[in-house]
Amino acid sequence: MKRLDIINLFSVVFLLLFVAGCSTTIDKNAGELSNETNPLPSWNDGNTKSSIIDFVEAVTNENSEYFIPVADRIATFDNDGTLWSEQPAYFQLFFVIDRIKELAPHHPEWKNKQPFKAVLENDMKELSKHGEHGILEIVMASHAGNTTEEFKAIVKEWLATAKHPRFNRPYTDLVYQPMLELLDYLRDNDFKVYIVSGGGIEFMRPWVEEVYGIPRDQVVGSSIKTEFVNEDGNPIINRLAEIDFIDDKDGKPLGINKFIGRKPVFASGNSDGDLQMLQWTASGEGKRFMLYVHHTDSIREWAYDRESHIGRLDKGLDEAKEKGWAVIDMKNDWKVIYPFENQSK
Amino acid sequence: MKRLDIINLFSVVFLLLFVAGCSTTIDKNAGELSNETNPLPSWNDGNTKSSIIDFVEAVTNENSEYFIPVADRIATFDNDGTLWSEQPAYFQLFFVIDRIKELAPHHPEWKNKQPFKAVLENDMKELSKHGEHGILEIVMASHAGNTTEEFKAIVKEWLATAKHPRFNRPYTDLVYQPMLELLDYLRDNDFKVYIVSGGGIEFMRPWVEEVYGIPRDQVVGSSIKTEFVNEDGNPIINRLAEIDFIDDKDGKPLGINKFIGRKPVFASGNSDGDLQMLQWTASGEGKRFMLYVHHTDSIREWAYDRESHIGRLDKGLDEAKEKGWAVIDMKNDWKVIYPFENQSK
Repeated sequence: MKRLDIINLFSVVFLLLFVAGCSTTIDKNAGELSNETNPLPSWNDGNTKSSIIDFVEAVTNENSEYFIPVADRIATFDNDGTLWSEQPAYFQLFFVIDRIKELAPHHPEWKNKQPFKAVLENDMKELSKHGEHGILEIVMASHAGNTTEEFKAIVKEWLATAKHPRFNRPYTDLVYQPMLELLDYLRDNDFKVYIVSGGGIEFMRPWVEEVYGIPRDQVVGSSIKTEFVNEDGNPIINRLAEIDFIDDKDGKPLGINKFIGRKPVFASGNSDGDLQMLQWTASGEGKRFMLYVHHTDSIREWAYDRESHIGRLDKGLDEAKEKGWAVIDMKNDWKVIYPFENQSK
Repeated sequence: MKRLDIINLFSVVFLLLFVAGCSTTIDKNAGELSNETNPLPSWNDGNTKSSIIDFVEAVTNENSEYFIPVADRIATFDNDGTLWSEQPAYFQLFFVIDRIKELAPHHPEWKNKQPFKAVLENDMKELSKHGEHGILEIVMASHAGNTTEEFKAIVKEWLATAKHPRFNRPYTDLVYQPMLELLDYLRDNDFKVYIVSGGGIEFMRPWVEEVYGIPRDQVVGSSIKTEFVNEDGNPIINRLAEIDFIDDKDGKPLGINKFIGRKPVFASGNSDGDLQMLQWTASGEGKRFMLYVHHTDSIREWAYDRESHIGRLDKGLDEAKEKGWAVIDMKNDWKVIYPFENQSK
């Protein structure tokens, strides 16, 4: 059986190398062929990959006792650290910092006012001293006080120009190639795929359609309050400096219930902030799949878990072991991390 | 042209009568044929019907200057008075009253405590004296204090047994046949159809899929707060006696922005509570369609507008006239009101 697999693999690789030189049309066909025979090409063979495929094959097989009707095939994914990187800080925090600097000329008082002073002086140590309250202040200053249309344009402009400090690439380049393949694989099997992230819902919506193929209305996230104003027949929605909903920890199952109205059968996260979402998913009847991303690759990405301030995975790691949930060992399970690794080959 | 239309109509009617006696397979084909040639069979010919069809044909035609890409074909519908009746009171209020009576044995104190006493004694005059605060009290007593799963079961059980006081039929029988056809027509043309209602989101979700074919996650509505509790590994979501979001008036565009993240290109309502949703929809670029249901049929349904306590349509009627929005004259535009009128023929 194993020798046959190797031969099959060689054939596929040969076929791919062969068609790589042909026209785009053939490339496309080859891609489809490849995805049919190997839906997760950037995943190394092993327990994680095979458990995903076993699950999908079982729940989509009408003759299986584990069959799940299409309407119930709900899959939810955390974003930061699960679909794209989150180091050396949540990317949304880089947006906040860049935005504060951009707004600074209109706020001369920030030069002497913390935590803005710390941001303007790149003093992250000082910023961290101001804790949650300090973060909230700079988040509100950078996220509120504009209309929904203006904010969308600001986010798009930032993503088009800002570069990640380590990779010197746009932040949206730092999505995980194996997870893009997993999203496609689930959608090919009639799963409805959602993002359920602690990140800002209006920070994610402007780009998730293009980057992940996830429609804007399949994004659940944290939000600030808004108000509707209709002056002279030109209605706008203003973004207010007040928290509306925090989509993290307990907030994740609550957000899922509010926005989706169905319990997922597949959920993936990477931190203790995702634990309640995975517990909620696991609590349904029938077959379920809970998947943690474990950041184990200090070379190609980052390695962190129980002690990390960002994306801490501690209780979740214990519960995954206890309950038999799947845990991605990034270093060993993923052939490539980012799409650009493939392109530069 | 007109004579030809009449001949075509006769042919279709004849064909339908002919195949009515045949097998289900042929019935189904005949239905498809009919919908293709006449997508809104329960609508009388006239301005309202033709303006809807003109809009849909223009925005789905790739060669039209008004073409709208599929991703932007968002259509939002109010529910009470737009998709189903709302007289002699919002149907959700009947649910509240029935539920209070059901719970009364566990609350002996309600016998002497307003507004519960009024509900138990069917004293609507007394109940109305307690105003918004009184309604809020009975809504919370009937909607909160259970889990999301329990509440879903309670709503389903109520809909399966409760009867509308005038028609002596389940409330879900009182949906508008012409609007069901409009939902289908829009979906056939790749519109994504949402409910955006002042009604409770968790009151609507248990039945809208079956009744309207609208998925649970395409429902925006009012909500109460919830909490996640995980005891002994059996997580539940409790419904709390606290308002979270009122999806009415200004709340409608805010709910659309929060849940959908796109401005609709088609919106329909029947009251001043829908006016902001229609204004928001109208404010986008390109071709848009704003549609009011005007309750003008005192015989088959109800006739009410500017003076009504329920579903008042006053400012909206003026603005529709001023802006040229479509207004359904229920009495003259609709051949039938409810699906059961067809069945009993």
